[in-house]
Amino acid sequence: MDAGVIDLNCDMGEGFGGWSIGADAALMPFVTSANIACGFHAGDPEVMRATVELAHRYGVGVGAHPGFPDLQGFGRRYLALSPAEIEAAVCYQIGALYAFTRSCGVALTHVKPHGALYNFAARDRAAADAIVRATRRFSADLILVGLAGSALVEAAVVAGLPRAGEAFVDRAYAPDGSLRDRRLPGALIDDPAAALNQALEIVQHGQVSTPEGDLPLSADTLCLHGDTPGADRIALAVREGLDAAGVRVRALPEVVAGRGRA
Amino acid sequence: MDAGVIDLNCDMGEGFGGWSIGADAALMPFVTSANIACGFHAGDPEVMRATVELAHRYGVGVGAHPGFPDLQGFGRRYLALSPAEIEAAVCYQIGALYAFTRSCGVALTHVKPHGALYNFAARDRAAADAIVRATRRFSADLILVGLAGSALVEAAVVAGLPRAGEAFVDRAYAPDGSLRDRRLPGALIDDPAAALNQALEIVQHGQVSTPEGDLPLSADTLCLHGDTPGADRIALAVREGLDAAGVRVRALPEVVAGRGRA
Amino acid sequence: MDAGVIDLNCDMGEGFGGWSIGADAALMPFVTSANIACGFHAGDPEVMRATVELAHRYGVGVGAHPGFPDLQGFGRRYLALSPAEIEAAVCYQIGALYAFTRSCGVALTHVKPHGALYNFAARDRAAADAIVRATRRFSADLILVGLAGSALVEAAVVAGLPRAGEAFVDRAYAPDGSLRDRRLPGALIDDPAAALNQALEIVQHGQVSTPEGDLPLSADTLCLHGDTPGADRIALAVREGLDAAGVRVRALPEVVAGRGRA
Amino acid sequence: MDAGVIDLNCDMGEGFGGWSIGADAALMPFVTSANIACGFHAGDPEVMRATVELAHRYGVGVGAHPGFPDLQGFGRRYLALSPAEIEAAVCYQIGALYAFTRSCGVALTHVKPHGALYNFAARDRAAADAIVRATRRFSADLILVGLAGSALVEAAVVAGLPRAGEAFVDRAYAPDGSLRDRRLPGALIDDPAAALNQALEIVQHGQVSTPEGDLPLSADTLCLHGDTPGADRIALAVREGLDAAGVRVRALPEVVAGRGRA
Repeated sequence: MDAGVIDLNCDMGEGFGGWSIGADAALMPFVTSANIACGFHAGDPEVMRATVELAHRYGVGVGAHPGFPDLQGFGRRYLALSPAEIEAAVCYQIGALYAFTRSCGVALTHVKPHGALYNFAARDRAAADAIVRATRRFSADLILVGLAGSALVEAAVVAGLPRAGEAFVDRAYAPDGSLRDRRLPGALIDDPAAALNQALEIVQHGQVSTPEGDLPLSADTLCLHGDTPGADRIALAVREGLDAAGVRVRALPEVVAGRGRA
Repeated sequence: MDAGVIDLNCDMGEGFGGWSIGADAALMPFVTSANIACGFHAGDPEVMRATVELAHRYGVGVGAHPGFPDLQGFGRRYLALSPAEIEAAVCYQIGALYAFTRSCGVALTHVKPHGALYNFAARDRAAADAIVRATRRFSADLILVGLAGSALVEAAVVAGLPRAGEAFVDRAYAPDGSLRDRRLPGALIDDPAAALNQALEIVQHGQVSTPEGDLPLSADTLCLHGDTPGADRIALAVREGLDAAGVRVRALPEVVAGRGRA
Repeated sequence: MDAGVIDLNCDMGEGFGGWSIGADAALMPFVTSANIACGFHAGDPEVMRATVELAHRYGVGVGAHPGFPDLQGFGRRYLALSPAEIEAAVCYQIGALYAFTRSCGVALTHVKPHGALYNFAARDRAAADAIVRATRRFSADLILVGLAGSALVEAAVVAGLPRAGEAFVDRAYAPDGSLRDRRLPGALIDDPAAALNQALEIVQHGQVSTPEGDLPLSADTLCLHGDTPGADRIALAVREGLDAAGVRVRALPEVVAGRGRA
Repeated sequence: MDAGVIDLNCDMGEGFGGWSIGADAALMPFVTSANIACGFHAGDPEVMRATVELAHRYGVGVGAHPGFPDLQGFGRRYLALSPAEIEAAVCYQIGALYAFTRSCGVALTHVKPHGALYNFAARDRAAADAIVRATRRFSADLILVGLAGSALVEAAVVAGLPRAGEAFVDRAYAPDGSLRDRRLPGALIDDPAAALNQALEIVQHGQVSTPEGDLPLSADTLCLHGDTPGADRIALAVREGLDAAGVRVRALPEVVAGRGRA
C-alpha cells in the first residue's frame, strides 16, 4: 500500500546584508524544496547566491519566493499594487533568482509568493491571475505553490500551469481552514511531535485538526517555517517521522508529476 | 568599398515610479541597441517591461544596464563593492531584465554597466573580471559593452566573451582618451552636426578630435545619451548622417559577428 | 466687509536624486504654505534642503509632508501599517524635515500627510490618531492639515491640536464630498478660470459645485497640485483672483489664529 | 588623586524591520552613551523609538549615529558623496533621531558617524567639515564624536564645536594608531580581561599597546561593539573594572564639560 508522497518546503535566504534570520544551514538537510527570497522583502544578491549554492549541495529544489517591495515590513504588510504591478514585480523577482540558478547550473522548479502577497493572492483572483501570468510567461514548466484550496491554486489550474497546494505543520488551523492568527495562543506548533502528527494527518488522512473538529485538507507540499522556535528539531522530527511512516518525501516536480499520473 | 558598420546604443528605461527621465520613445526609432536599467540605479519592474516592449516594437536589441545599488545617486557615485558583491549584483540585474525579455519573447543581446560601475570597471581589472564572470556564467553569448580600450573590454577578451568597444558622439574626449569632465565647458556636444561629425570620424577614420590633436579610437558601438539637451535631434542627425554616408547601422550581434569575420 | 482669509498650499520637493517633478520654483511665488516631502515617498536630503531654502526666500510657510515608505509608488499605494508604525513613520519624517528648517533658521509650521496616508487617515480614526500623536508629541504648536471634515481633522480637534481643513481648487468634487476619481473624465480642473471660480466659491460662499448640486465646504487652506498640467498658470490665476476679490491669502499660522479669534 | 573620567558608548538600534543585531538590552545597563542608528545604514522608525526609550530607562545619553545610505552594506562600504551630500545626509539623520528624543522627552547629546562615513571623515577634512557643519547648524551644543586624533575631531576643534575623541576597548591597535584590520587575527579583543586592561591603559595612562610598543592615546569615550562575540560579558567586565579602579564613568556632556574645566 502507498503511504503517499509529499514535498517538504521551507522559506530560505531571508537575511539581508549584515542581518540574518532563520536557520537555513540547519534546515536544508531535511527539506526537498527551498523558496528563496528575491530581494524585495528579504534577500540580497550575495544571500541569494549563497542560498542557491546551499540548496544545490543538498539536492534541494530551488524556487523563487517573491514578495511585496517592503524590506522594512518583511513583505508581511499588504501593499495595494495593481494586478499589472504585481505581475511585473513577480516577473522581476523570478528573473533575479533565476540568474543565480542558471549561473550555478541549478534548475528553477517553482514559485511561491511570500507573506502578504501569498495571503492576498489566496483570496483575490485578480492578484492570483497576475502571479500566474508572470510565472507562466517566464516558463510554463514552473510549479506555482499556493495555499491548498486558494484562489491562487485555482488560477493556476484554470491556466493549465503546474501547481502545488501547500499545508503547514507548525501552524494551527482555524475551523474555516485558514491559519490561526499568529497573535493568538496556540497559533504556533513548536512541539516537534505535534508538528509530525499534523504532517501525518495531512499526508495520510487528508485532514487536519481544528478546535471544531477535523477538516479535509489535501496538500502536495508541507511548509516548515525557519523562524519557528526550534525549527531545526521540528524539521528533523517531521522528516524522520515521514520517512519512518513510509511516506516518500520528494521535491515538487516529482510530487506534481506523480499526481498527474495518479 | 565598405563604409563600415556600427551599432548605435542608448541608455533607456531610466525612470522610476512616478518619475521619468530621458526621451525613450523619441530616440528608439534611431538606435539599434537599448541598454535598459535594471532597478538598482533606475528602472522599476513596470518601467522595465514597458521599455522592453518599446524596444521590441522598433526591432531594437535589448541589453541589461546594471548599476550600483544607489537610486538616489542614479548609480553615478562610486560604491566600494567587493568583486564578489559586484558579480552578484550584476548577476541579479541581468536576471531581472532577462525575465522581461523572456516574457516578451525578445532576445537579450548584451550587458553594459552603468555610470560609476562602468567607469570603475574601465580601470579596475578585478571589477571588470567580476562583471565578465557574472555575464559569462549567465550566458557565454551575451556581448559585454565597455569603454573602447578599457580594462572591461580587455577582461572580456581574455575570457573569450563577446564584447563591444563603445565610443561617444555627444561627449568631448580628453587628450588621454578619457571623456572630458562633465563639469568642464564643452564637455557635452549638443550640436547635431558636431555629433554626426564625431560619429563619422570614429566610424570612418578610427579617430576622434581632442584639444591636442586626433586620437586613434576604434569602436563597435556609439552611445547617444538620452538626457543630453536636444537628444532626439542629435539622434536623428547621427542616424541619418551615418545612413547617408553608407555606414551600415546594425545591432550589436551583427556588428560583433561581422568583426569576427573581418 | 471681510472677504475672508485663506492659505494656499502646494506639495513641493517631490523630486528624488536625479529625478524632478512639479514646478516648485514657478509655483512658490503664489502660495503661502509649502508641504515638503520627507524622503519616504519622494524627496531626498539635498532636495529637502533646497526646497526649504526656496520657500524661505519667498517667505512661504514650511510644513512636513510625510508619506508611506514607498518611493516606487510615490506614496500613492496603501500600505498596511499599524497605528504604531504610522506614528513612528510620521515622527521620523517630521524630524527629518525639521532638521533642515532648523539649520536654515526657518520655522516649521505644519504637517500634512501625503497621498495614500492622507486618504487613509481621512477615514480611519486609528490612523488619524496616530498622526495626531506623532505631531503633538513633537510640538503642540504644529498645525495638522487634513481633508476638510475628515477623521484626521476630527482627531486633531479632539486632541486640541491646531488643525486646518483643506479643499482643492484643481480637482472636481463628487456629490458625497470626496474628490472625483482621478481616472474619471473631468476629475482634474486644469482651466485657470474654473480653478479660480472653485476657489472663490469655497472661500466666499463655503460651498463647492458637484454634479448633483452645491455642497457646503468650509476650508482653511486650498491645495494647488504642482503636477497638474499648467499648474503655474492655475496658481497665478487663483492667487491674483483671490487678491483681486479682497481675500487675504495668508500662511497657515495666521489663518488658524484668525479663526480662533472669530 | 583623580582616577579619571570617561564615557562608555555603544552603537545601538542597528536592527531593521524584522531583523535584529547586537544585544542592546544586555549592554544598555553598562554604558553611558548610546549612538542610535538613523535609518540609513540600519534602524527604522520603530527601532529608533524603542531604542531611545530603552536608553532613557537606563539614563543613558542618546546620540545620532548617521551613516551612508546603504542598508545592504550596513554603512560599511564607502560611497562617494560630495561634501554637500554628506552635510545634507547627516542633517536629515540628526533630525530623524531628534524627533524621537523630543517625543520621548529625552535630550540629544551627541553625533557619532557610522562605519565607512566615520572612517572617511577621520582622514578627509572636507567630509569632516561637512559633518561638523551639519551638526553645528542643528545645534552648537551637540558633541561630535570621532576617532581620537582624527580629522573629524580637528574639524570640530576649529569650528568650536564640542567634541569627544573615541578609543576602542575591543579592537587591537596598529603601530600607527589605526585599528588593526578586522580580517587579521587578533583584531578583535573578545577576552573581557584584555578589554578591561586596554580600557584602563587608555584612561589611566593615556596609552595603548601595539605590536611595536605603547602608543600615546588620549580619549574622552570608549566604544564597546555590540556585535563582538560576548559583548555583554566584555561590557560588564569593563564597567565594573573601571568603577572598581575609581574611574568615574559618565555620559559625554559631563566628560566634555569636565575637560573644559581641567
